[in-house]
Amino acid sequence: MIETPPLVDQYCQGVLRTELGLGTFEARLVPSAGPPAAGTTFFDTQAGFAVRRWCPPLLGLEPHCAPARYLARRRELGAAEAARRLLRGSGVAAYLLDTGAAGDLTGPEELAVAGEAEAFEAVRLELLAEHVADTSGTAAAFLGHLAEAVHQSAAGAAAFTCGTAAPAAAPSLGAVLAFAPGPPGRGEVAGAAGRWLARRARGEAVRDPVLLRHLLWSAVDSGLPVQLHAAGGLDGPGQRPDRGDPGLFTEFVRATAGLGTRLVLLGGYPYHRQAAQLAAAFPHAYADVGAVVGRSGARAAAVLAELLELAPFGKLLFSSGGGGLPELHAVGALAFREALGRVLGGWVAEGAWSRRDADRVAAMIAGGNARRVYRLDGRP
Amino acid sequence: MIETPPLVDQYCQGVLRTELGLGTFEARLVPSAGPPAAGTTFFDTQAGFAVRRWCPPLLGLEPHCAPARYLARRRELGAAEAARRLLRGSGVAAYLLDTGAAGDLTGPEELAVAGEAEAFEAVRLELLAEHVADTSGTAAAFLGHLAEAVHQSAAGAAAFTCGTAAPAAAPSLGAVLAFAPGPPGRGEVAGAAGRWLARRARGEAVRDPVLLRHLLWSAVDSGLPVQLHAAGGLDGPGQRPDRGDPGLFTEFVRATAGLGTRLVLLGGYPYHRQAAQLAAAFPHAYADVGAVVGRSGARAAAVLAELLELAPFGKLLFSSGGGGLPELHAVGALAFREALGRVLGGWVAEGAWSRRDADRVAAMIAGGNARRVYRLDGRP
Amino acid sequence: MIETPPLVDQYCQGVLRTELGLGTFEARLVPSAGPPAAGTTFFDTQAGFAVRRWCPPLLGLEPHCAPARYLARRRELGAAEAARRLLRGSGVAAYLLDTGAAGDLTGPEELAVAGEAEAFEAVRLELLAEHVADTSGTAAAFLGHLAEAVHQSAAGAAAFTCGTAAPAAAPSLGAVLAFAPGPPGRGEVAGAAGRWLARRARGEAVRDPVLLRHLLWSAVDSGLPVQLHAAGGLDGPGQRPDRGDPGLFTEFVRATAGLGTRLVLLGGYPYHRQAAQLAAAFPHAYADVGAVVGRSGARAAAVLAELLELAPFGKLLFSSGGGGLPELHAVGALAFREALGRVLGGWVAEGAWSRRDADRVAAMIAGGNARRVYRLDGRP
Repeated sequence: MIETPPLVDQYCQGVLRTELGLGTFEARLVPSAGPPAAGTTFFDTQAGFAVRRWCPPLLGLEPHCAPARYLARRRELGAAEAARRLLRGSGVAAYLLDTGAAGDLTGPEELAVAGEAEAFEAVRLELLAEHVADTSGTAAAFLGHLAEAVHQSAAGAAAFTCGTAAPAAAPSLGAVLAFAPGPPGRGEVAGAAGRWLARRARGEAVRDPVLLRHLLWSAVDSGLPVQLHAAGGLDGPGQRPDRGDPGLFTEFVRATAGLGTRLVLLGGYPYHRQAAQLAAAFPHAYADVGAVVGRSGARAAAVLAELLELAPFGKLLFSSGGGGLPELHAVGALAFREALGRVLGGWVAEGAWSRRDADRVAAMIAGGNARRVYRLDGRP
Repeated sequence: MIETPPLVDQYCQGVLRTELGLGTFEARLVPSAGPPAAGTTFFDTQAGFAVRRWCPPLLGLEPHCAPARYLARRRELGAAEAARRLLRGSGVAAYLLDTGAAGDLTGPEELAVAGEAEAFEAVRLELLAEHVADTSGTAAAFLGHLAEAVHQSAAGAAAFTCGTAAPAAAPSLGAVLAFAPGPPGRGEVAGAAGRWLARRARGEAVRDPVLLRHLLWSAVDSGLPVQLHAAGGLDGPGQRPDRGDPGLFTEFVRATAGLGTRLVLLGGYPYHRQAAQLAAAFPHAYADVGAVVGRSGARAAAVLAELLELAPFGKLLFSSGGGGLPELHAVGALAFREALGRVLGGWVAEGAWSRRDADRVAAMIAGGNARRVYRLDGRP
Repeated sequence: MIETPPLVDQYCQGVLRTELGLGTFEARLVPSAGPPAAGTTFFDTQAGFAVRRWCPPLLGLEPHCAPARYLARRRELGAAEAARRLLRGSGVAAYLLDTGAAGDLTGPEELAVAGEAEAFEAVRLELLAEHVADTSGTAAAFLGHLAEAVHQSAAGAAAFTCGTAAPAAAPSLGAVLAFAPGPPGRGEVAGAAGRWLARRARGEAVRDPVLLRHLLWSAVDSGLPVQLHAAGGLDGPGQRPDRGDPGLFTEFVRATAGLGTRLVLLGGYPYHRQAAQLAAAFPHAYADVGAVVGRSGARAAAVLAELLELAPFGKLLFSSGGGGLPELHAVGALAFREALGRVLGGWVAEGAWSRRDADRVAAMIAGGNARRVYRLDGRP
């Protein structure tokens, strides 16, 4: 079989500290605009089946056991101990943690300890702006503090991340950047900042397209890699599957070519082949394997293989996309490793690839690429 | 192997009563804007090969026999007897029949007898409007009678169905609803009805976007499930593959959330993953397996597996999409059952799923979901 | 195994006459907007792995040998001898050569000798216009000479080809035709020609949408098959993955129905299923297997199988899409043959197809369809 070294999970969120009942666990299992339809359960999805396949053994149960039995065992161990077992069983050596997700979630240090791994920070640009806005009286002050905050983040964090989940009534990041990929002018930014500061409620998300573009271009200027999320979520008004197409980032990718930045495109299923295409066409564009691998469960190998059609092997990066439930981190990692082994191993068996190449590519996608792109090895 | 219970074919049309020659049979085999190109035949398609694989044995011939031989045997038996054998050999226990298709086709009762199955009606909204218009003098009368007709249909039928085939020069249903998802205002509807009644020829199809939306919102209000066809047909002006993307229904799906309606998205290949995505994101949205499974023949399992990536297993419904030729009903059912067994059986063999789960999911997609969504079991 | 007769490569470009070092070879391996990213190489792609799989044995080396070793052997043999061995080892009996590609490339006769094959010409419409413009003083003279040149080409060439690579700052051919599919009016054409002639630098590419449409409609009128490239290249401003969707050709395909022309849709990945859909819907539309099969290497069979879902078997045509490196011609052919054998052979093994049908379909896609569509057998 293909050897896969310890993984670098290049995008995830923290783990919930609270105990969960069957219903609250189920609600966290898959993103949805509402509760499961009458007569159905979110456990009856590839994500649910994947959790039941991979997680029970890490807690000492048989794979595929009933959800109620799994949840009982989880409560017996306690949320913290369950998280520890799940994270340590997933073969992840380093996490890049988006610290901007809402909820009672572990931060990088706590995740590192729980998972016996390294943890680095990915700073969510929208949240950075919100924090700065909370303490800035005027547009000028806001923009000055923001520049400072971006600069400071660039010194300590491993990446910026943007577009994770479009706030309600906001266009997707792809839609914003497809419409106007370039940096907004100074006056335009000042005007937008003034209007936003005047109207926003404390803690309210940035949704103004001009400010989003200003944030992104500031991040690009900082030299830190920038993660762009193709918002695939369908829970906000105006969202549509095709608004999550990473192809919408093309003009922005083109506009940032040659500036020394590295862009990592996350998400995008079922338009993931387009992300691979951009990673092939532009030297500074990278594609994420992402949450879909864990979410598609038994189909993980099939989806991964589609990404491997055009994406250069040095441009594809593993992530679990997990957040909230440590089960999602674990399943993302375990389903990915199994899928990668199956896909590359199959090509070796057919004579299409050499084993040596397969092992080398597996190591790149599993973590080597992320270590190089985010310069993790020199970090404290 | 995976056990699949008798199927519920949740969308099909009637069966032709007339005898068919080789040419007329071929013309019915695949949708096309014209006759086969010089030097080609519609038999040389996955649909043609699938018919030659599955149907000859049901009429006492070898699989893959030549089309001429198959047609000769079919004529020998007669259209009615051939239909009986094909339908009874397909393992379908219940049909949901769109009674709005043109041609000398069997209705629900006749199909039920021929197929030794139950048959329920799906009322085509466009046709309902046309029938009402034929007997209504004024816009006010038309709208009143229409409300009554929708109400009456809701009492007797199992579903409404809309958008099956966009009439020539009309936008696809997806294009209509993407542009304006909400219910049109009273005055707008009255105006559109008046203009349509004044100009239409008797029996002419509804193509006015305002009236289509009014029809759909009336159907939604009735509480009966509504089938939305992502028009994949390319035979009308203005049709394009991407106009058949079910993602275009997103805003309509969002607008109808929480109203108690159930929407079933049909068709959409090659954008079928988007239908699965909507079924995952919205509690009241369901996705159809559909005609593509039978039409793609040897690729049926691959297409079905793509649907099974994100669609919750309680939200995916089998249909043959057959109409005209009973061969299409039979191939849809037999190819589906084989594909489902192959896909789920493969996952069990790999250890990704338990056998118990696989059998359970097979039963849901084959018919259980349709019985629940359309409330078939309480019906007369 | 499935028997595949000698291939007809229905779209390729000439082979470079010059010797290549490791860096220049690598730069030719995959299309890209720039050099490989730091820490990566274009050899670490499916295309690179496919070259290392298929080509070394043709030059007397082990498959999967290191790129440097392969290049050393190539230099040892010389560019001409290496090209001869690669072309003759690929099993191609006839080439359709786009003679409009830039660089020191072999023409049809030279390719025919090197490859011990027939070679036919596909005339690139944009280049024809440029040549005519170079020797025409006025718009009227230009349009007159152009009509003549199209007429003359139609007598000698096997096809017209258009849209191969959109010049910088030009919209894709699909975008042009989606916006205005019909033939432009006389006055409109004369105006556009006048403006273009007045401003163009010698040898400058046609990018005016009106002139492109005029070229295409002239080609349609000539009766010769017309190849339409869904520009998948991302190296020009304004290009986006979805601008390469062959679905954008739909209105043009519809507008040319019944005129006696045959349209062959090339490229389009990851929207290749849409090309197959058009080939199924319109009698005069054909789909290309294309460069993606060679480029996707170990995934060639998977991509080919997607094309084989809806494309009628008499409407799908092999091409390597090779140009520059003879390795691309060879890999395109060898990967295609292996993929076709694997896909069709798998269906025979499953009982989905008969062996007889599989052999027949293999012969059609490999070359029979191209011989019929381009009427190659009667040609000098």
